[in-house]
Amino acid sequence: MKKIFIINGPNLNLLGKREENIYGSETLEDINKKISQKAEELKLEVAFFQSNSEGEIVSKIQELKKEGFSGLIINPGAYTHTSIAIRDAIAGVNINTIEVHISNIHSREEFRKQSFIAPVCIGQISGLSYFGYIYALEYFAN
Amino acid sequence: MKKIFIINGPNLNLLGKREENIYGSETLEDINKKISQKAEELKLEVAFFQSNSEGEIVSKIQELKKEGFSGLIINPGAYTHTSIAIRDAIAGVNINTIEVHISNIHSREEFRKQSFIAPVCIGQISGLSYFGYIYALEYFAN
Amino acid sequence: MKKIFIINGPNLNLLGKREENIYGSETLEDINKKISQKAEELKLEVAFFQSNSEGEIVSKIQELKKEGFSGLIINPGAYTHTSIAIRDAIAGVNINTIEVHISNIHSREEFRKQSFIAPVCIGQISGLSYFGYIYALEYFAN
Amino acid sequence: MKKIFIINGPNLNLLGKREENIYGSETLEDINKKISQKAEELKLEVAFFQSNSEGEIVSKIQELKKEGFSGLIINPGAYTHTSIAIRDAIAGVNINTIEVHISNIHSREEFRKQSFIAPVCIGQISGLSYFGYIYALEYFAN
Amino acid sequence: MKKIFIINGPNLNLLGKREENIYGSETLEDINKKISQKAEELKLEVAFFQSNSEGEIVSKIQELKKEGFSGLIINPGAYTHTSIAIRDAIAGVNINTIEVHISNIHSREEFRKQSFIAPVCIGQISGLSYFGYIYALEYFAN
Amino acid sequence: MKKIFIINGPNLNLLGKREENIYGSETLEDINKKISQKAEELKLEVAFFQSNSEGEIVSKIQELKKEGFSGLIINPGAYTHTSIAIRDAIAGVNINTIEVHISNIHSREEFRKQSFIAPVCIGQISGLSYFGYIYALEYFAN
Amino acid sequence: MKKIFIINGPNLNLLGKREENIYGSETLEDINKKISQKAEELKLEVAFFQSNSEGEIVSKIQELKKEGFSGLIINPGAYTHTSIAIRDAIAGVNINTIEVHISNIHSREEFRKQSFIAPVCIGQISGLSYFGYIYALEYFAN
Amino acid sequence: MKKIFIINGPNLNLLGKREENIYGSETLEDINKKISQKAEELKLEVAFFQSNSEGEIVSKIQELKKEGFSGLIINPGAYTHTSIAIRDAIAGVNINTIEVHISNIHSREEFRKQSFIAPVCIGQISGLSYFGYIYALEYFAN
Amino acid sequence: MKKIFIINGPNLNLLGKREENIYGSETLEDINKKISQKAEELKLEVAFFQSNSEGEIVSKIQELKKEGFSGLIINPGAYTHTSIAIRDAIAGVNINTIEVHISNIHSREEFRKQSFIAPVCIGQISGLSYFGYIYALEYFAN
Amino acid sequence: MKKIFIINGPNLNLLGKREENIYGSETLEDINKKISQKAEELKLEVAFFQSNSEGEIVSKIQELKKEGFSGLIINPGAYTHTSIAIRDAIAGVNINTIEVHISNIHSREEFRKQSFIAPVCIGQISGLSYFGYIYALEYFAN
Amino acid sequence: MKKIFIINGPNLNLLGKREENIYGSETLEDINKKISQKAEELKLEVAFFQSNSEGEIVSKIQELKKEGFSGLIINPGAYTHTSIAIRDAIAGVNINTIEVHISNIHSREEFRKQSFIAPVCIGQISGLSYFGYIYALEYFAN
Amino acid sequence: MKKIFIINGPNLNLLGKREENIYGSETLEDINKKISQKAEELKLEVAFFQSNSEGEIVSKIQELKKEGFSGLIINPGAYTHTSIAIRDAIAGVNINTIEVHISNIHSREEFRKQSFIAPVCIGQISGLSYFGYIYALEYFAN
Repeated sequence: MKKIFIINGPNLNLLGKREENIYGSETLEDINKKISQKAEELKLEVAFFQSNSEGEIVSKIQELKKEGFSGLIINPGAYTHTSIAIRDAIAGVNINTIEVHISNIHSREEFRKQSFIAPVCIGQISGLSYFGYIYALEYFAN
Repeated sequence: MKKIFIINGPNLNLLGKREENIYGSETLEDINKKISQKAEELKLEVAFFQSNSEGEIVSKIQELKKEGFSGLIINPGAYTHTSIAIRDAIAGVNINTIEVHISNIHSREEFRKQSFIAPVCIGQISGLSYFGYIYALEYFAN
Repeated sequence: MKKIFIINGPNLNLLGKREENIYGSETLEDINKKISQKAEELKLEVAFFQSNSEGEIVSKIQELKKEGFSGLIINPGAYTHTSIAIRDAIAGVNINTIEVHISNIHSREEFRKQSFIAPVCIGQISGLSYFGYIYALEYFAN
Repeated sequence: MKKIFIINGPNLNLLGKREENIYGSETLEDINKKISQKAEELKLEVAFFQSNSEGEIVSKIQELKKEGFSGLIINPGAYTHTSIAIRDAIAGVNINTIEVHISNIHSREEFRKQSFIAPVCIGQISGLSYFGYIYALEYFAN
Repeated sequence: MKKIFIINGPNLNLLGKREENIYGSETLEDINKKISQKAEELKLEVAFFQSNSEGEIVSKIQELKKEGFSGLIINPGAYTHTSIAIRDAIAGVNINTIEVHISNIHSREEFRKQSFIAPVCIGQISGLSYFGYIYALEYFAN
Repeated sequence: MKKIFIINGPNLNLLGKREENIYGSETLEDINKKISQKAEELKLEVAFFQSNSEGEIVSKIQELKKEGFSGLIINPGAYTHTSIAIRDAIAGVNINTIEVHISNIHSREEFRKQSFIAPVCIGQISGLSYFGYIYALEYFAN
Repeated sequence: MKKIFIINGPNLNLLGKREENIYGSETLEDINKKISQKAEELKLEVAFFQSNSEGEIVSKIQELKKEGFSGLIINPGAYTHTSIAIRDAIAGVNINTIEVHISNIHSREEFRKQSFIAPVCIGQISGLSYFGYIYALEYFAN
Repeated sequence: MKKIFIINGPNLNLLGKREENIYGSETLEDINKKISQKAEELKLEVAFFQSNSEGEIVSKIQELKKEGFSGLIINPGAYTHTSIAIRDAIAGVNINTIEVHISNIHSREEFRKQSFIAPVCIGQISGLSYFGYIYALEYFAN
Repeated sequence: MKKIFIINGPNLNLLGKREENIYGSETLEDINKKISQKAEELKLEVAFFQSNSEGEIVSKIQELKKEGFSGLIINPGAYTHTSIAIRDAIAGVNINTIEVHISNIHSREEFRKQSFIAPVCIGQISGLSYFGYIYALEYFAN
Repeated sequence: MKKIFIINGPNLNLLGKREENIYGSETLEDINKKISQKAEELKLEVAFFQSNSEGEIVSKIQELKKEGFSGLIINPGAYTHTSIAIRDAIAGVNINTIEVHISNIHSREEFRKQSFIAPVCIGQISGLSYFGYIYALEYFAN
Repeated sequence: MKKIFIINGPNLNLLGKREENIYGSETLEDINKKISQKAEELKLEVAFFQSNSEGEIVSKIQELKKEGFSGLIINPGAYTHTSIAIRDAIAGVNINTIEVHISNIHSREEFRKQSFIAPVCIGQISGLSYFGYIYALEYFAN
Repeated sequence: MKKIFIINGPNLNLLGKREENIYGSETLEDINKKISQKAEELKLEVAFFQSNSEGEIVSKIQELKKEGFSGLIINPGAYTHTSIAIRDAIAGVNINTIEVHISNIHSREEFRKQSFIAPVCIGQISGLSYFGYIYALEYFAN
């Protein structure tokens, strides 16, 4: 059974509790539950990790391969735009990765349009709320 | 039954016939067939349009609402980066739109990172090959 | 009798039907009627053309001189900011041209502040709604 | 009877006396006379002010509302491109304003293309010689 | 008794009379009264000056030292972003200066983020409404 | 009794121990003591937190509201210029925040002039040494 | 017999009829005749296409390979500087291409120095009037 | 007898009283005296004007020709880098002008390297202390 | 005996396990062993630290002086290009530092050419594989 | 008989001996021989010069007119992008010049796209290997 | 007797022989003669050097001090804008230097406004034809 | 015996004689002696070359391979930042090269941070005084 890892970056633990006009009313737990259900349906094993720390995310990515994960779904939050370290971790372990954003980063501040992460990913889904994670999962199932 | 329109911009009629290392080996017809199958499954009606002409794409978008379409999936190809006219058409008819790219535009030339279209869309899917269209369809089905 | 040509670019056929807060509630037909009335009053002959296609606008401009038009009023819409081809057409046929914008392009997105067309025109009127066309007409009458 | 104020910025008192190839041969007095005639015709009351001083222009704008003026026509000259203070004055007193330029600022030096004033105005007329003032007056009459 | 001078730049005489959502409802007189009270409490002598003219502000700053002032609190308004002359005056007379802004200049237009004045000041207070002046006064009292 | 939280970012634990010409000779403990005294005087409850870790600061900010704090005074140190994550945390919990800098960031390296944090704060105080914290406290007391 | 296709972009149908100081006095027909003569001499088959429409040029390029053309000479006119779609078409059909400009694009406006097309061509000839086409033809003959 | 006018801009009245390490110890009066002596020697008539106000400088320049001056020596101080109005005045009256700076503007802050004034002058002398005025005078004498 | 500290930043714990074409096949442990041998030979005491966390690196640097280290060799990895906090820590404790990079950062992506750290170091060695650390050590021995 | 001079700049003496994938396998001598043959055929006299020194190239260009040359073909190599001195020499002696590049400079590093030389030339040929020189010769023969 | 050295850079040997509208009709020899006469009058010893080679100019500057020269007048021609090596030579030998330009570099191409040399000079004279050298000489005489 | 060549660029012959605070007190001869000693110790043959001329350095590099040198140590001085010709020479002869700077180029003027040379080198050592050459030598010995 294929194993997929899901990382959520800084402030995504606030989902459903902050700025609902931008991020919707579901909490991260709600979303993770939906992802788990979808995973079961798709015969995938999933595991979750959220951290506000750039360094912890880097460390976690480094361990994925030896823990048997073959895919990574990452919503790097604000680190999308500032972290070369996360980019290097993904490129370093050479794990298939899809970048997901709940809101449409292209219709917000100018500085949110640039992603250091996307160039080392398979692709990016942005603006489709929690479905972004679901579709990324489906992609790995194919 | 919800009606969804799919627009493919310049050079996407070459799919499967050119630069297979970037765009894969499936033709636009192959992809459209897959989209149709998925649409049937999701109880959606779909219609397709491909054009190399910016003006024709603008004109087509203008007609969508009065033809009863409630959603638009657009792969604007090269016009992603140069067409304010298509952006204005989407904003003007105020139709729900998802931007799709088969290849990962974030890992190519610098000028392919900017999208004039994305800010007026719900979201953007890039790099997930033809699945981008499928996921956009699923999103509209929800 | 002096002949003046009026060109409206992409999406201006949506006038009065879209984004009324920006563009007002009059349709292009309403505006053209007003222009025709004013023209009659000023003893000018007018003809109208709207297109969403950059190439068609270029071709139309090329024909104006041999069709006996001595002035051009153009609202290039989105092509204002992206079309060097229209600029070259105006410079090429060397026809007296006034650029008109219904909304104030200087108070919108940054990319709407640059005009490729204005430098080859007599002048530019922006933000005075349909009166922009009327004043341009009056200018040609003098 | 509606009252309209007309402000001309630095060096516009030189009109007709300098660089005739750019600005034409009419003096500011000639132009003001034409504006007065038009105003009478349109049943508008007009008053004029010219100053080379940014501060004096700011102060004058601040007084317009309490002096009963409902519209402002301003040719800010060189301050168009350098004065945030005049912009703030217009936004501060919230008076309907039209920016006018006698020459086409879009076909001159690069630094003349940017206007700090236009974004807080109804619109801008540039390049139509003294008619710019006349059309602005007509606009206020409507 | 230490003497502190307070300069307010262009349009600050409109305080309480314009854009209340940005600047609050107190007039400059109200604020000056509060400053006077605080000064008395802190055993400081204060004097006030408001001008819309860059040159007058420059001239006033030049006189401060010989008039016995040991500190300057300046809200340069729009000149914050455009006046090197005021910067040079402060650096030239070498008077201790604190820059104050009533609104938060960092959350407004891009061009309001740059200050020519701040680098020659002790510091800058922005966004704390009239308290900015009060705190600057307290600083000078220490 | 109103509760205010004070966060000091990276290297501020070195205060009084490093670069005294820039930051003065008082230690963070000295400053915190002064803040506590002032708080007592103003009938405010204060709590302190210093961290060199961006992630820890983000996590701490997230907890403030549920711990009953109604105001935040933050000196983000170097993260001022590089952390979108801290910006998002402040905007996310929607807590009233004042940014403080001991030295004048506007008179140092070019890259210290940009703040990612200031636009989501009430205001910013920079260059007034430890008094910045004191004045922020006073502001919250009003 | 090798087949070479020649595309001329927007406004090149005006050749010899406009701005003779920049483009010379020969019409496109004159030039094509010279190209035909040279082709005959070189034992090459040539075909011509001129369009003001970006989309039509893209479509035409797509058909070249299946119509048996092994080389393309293109003068993209204004689209040189704005069309990624034409660039993609050339790269997509992978046809040997030489970019030609009649005038020296490097000694005109700044925006004419950038070519989106040149990086996917064998090379570029600019400023040598109609000889540019002739030399491109010679190159293909070798 | 040829008449030459000398304008000194903002803060130059502080000469010899401020920042002596940059500007030297001579006052403007000292310098003017030296200029007068040199003028007498060269059989030139000179007149002096200093102002901190951009507007006053503009107005003064406008009057020079009708007052019979055939040359202008201007040290625009900080307005060198911010005043298009002064540039326009010089170009407008079309008077022969030499720009002078006492200190070397090329070895100071980046923003002091750009001059709006120099392009409409005969030339510029910078960094040669008060001799800059003397040499400009000599130039006019030849 | 002189004490030297060696810090390796994010992802350097992956050395020899990732992207061998860029970073070579030796692990960080292999390299540290070589450094230890060299240190012994040079009569230096060395200690090692690797972290993926910016904050931990900052904290560690702060302690070096009081732990008796007189030199620091740092390979900041991705933080080279994004961390002002590490820069401030080095400047703050004022410890002699040499920046080392195993690969040549000048021949990779544009964003890897800028170092926030180098300006506060004695120097930088890049591209000489693990020898960079060895040479830095030799430098401290002299 | 018309005399044409051919200058090759730095490193072009390495042709055929270096980076054959970019520059081909022919040596400069091979190419010069072909040029000589063509010249004979065209009844032109040619002379050759290669130098790695910017100054020597400048000096050589200065002498061309008095030595009776009426045309210059120059491949400035790396000096294309850095030498204003060579540009000035060409403009100074006012000799008809064609710039040639063997490889396509538009498909290489960003800094190779800018030419200081091209704006003072008749035109530029790039990417057509040694044929660039031949075509330039043909151009001069016409 | 004070010794002053005069260096003229690339293409200045063409003076009076090229572009007379920009540089005037006097040759370098004419100018040098005038400088010699002036030097004699001022009791200065002068020596001249012209070179088109950056390296030769660097070498010459290095020798000036040991040859007893106390001042350098340099017109670096095109190297003004491209040579850091000449800048370093002047700074390295620490010789008093004045930069001279015959034409007004501020009213020509954008790239001629930047000088690498001026920041290490006493000052710069530009646009005053050969008088620039004369005034520099006078400056050294004082 | 491996042969290594050492090139020093413009002004490095002034070492020990100029700006000692930046470059130290040792002359180039002193340094070369140390390099020779080290080379002997490492069983390497070394040869030295210093030139102020870009062209001479290019020519010298071209000869290295045929003279049997297998490594190059280059301190390009000011040409680091301006010479594409030297870059092309190194890439052209494809010789293993290490760039060395005596001072830390990253802590000086902004324009000294960019190196045209480093991307075609193995690596770069900067700021470690003459040891940079020694370490480069050691690297080649390994």
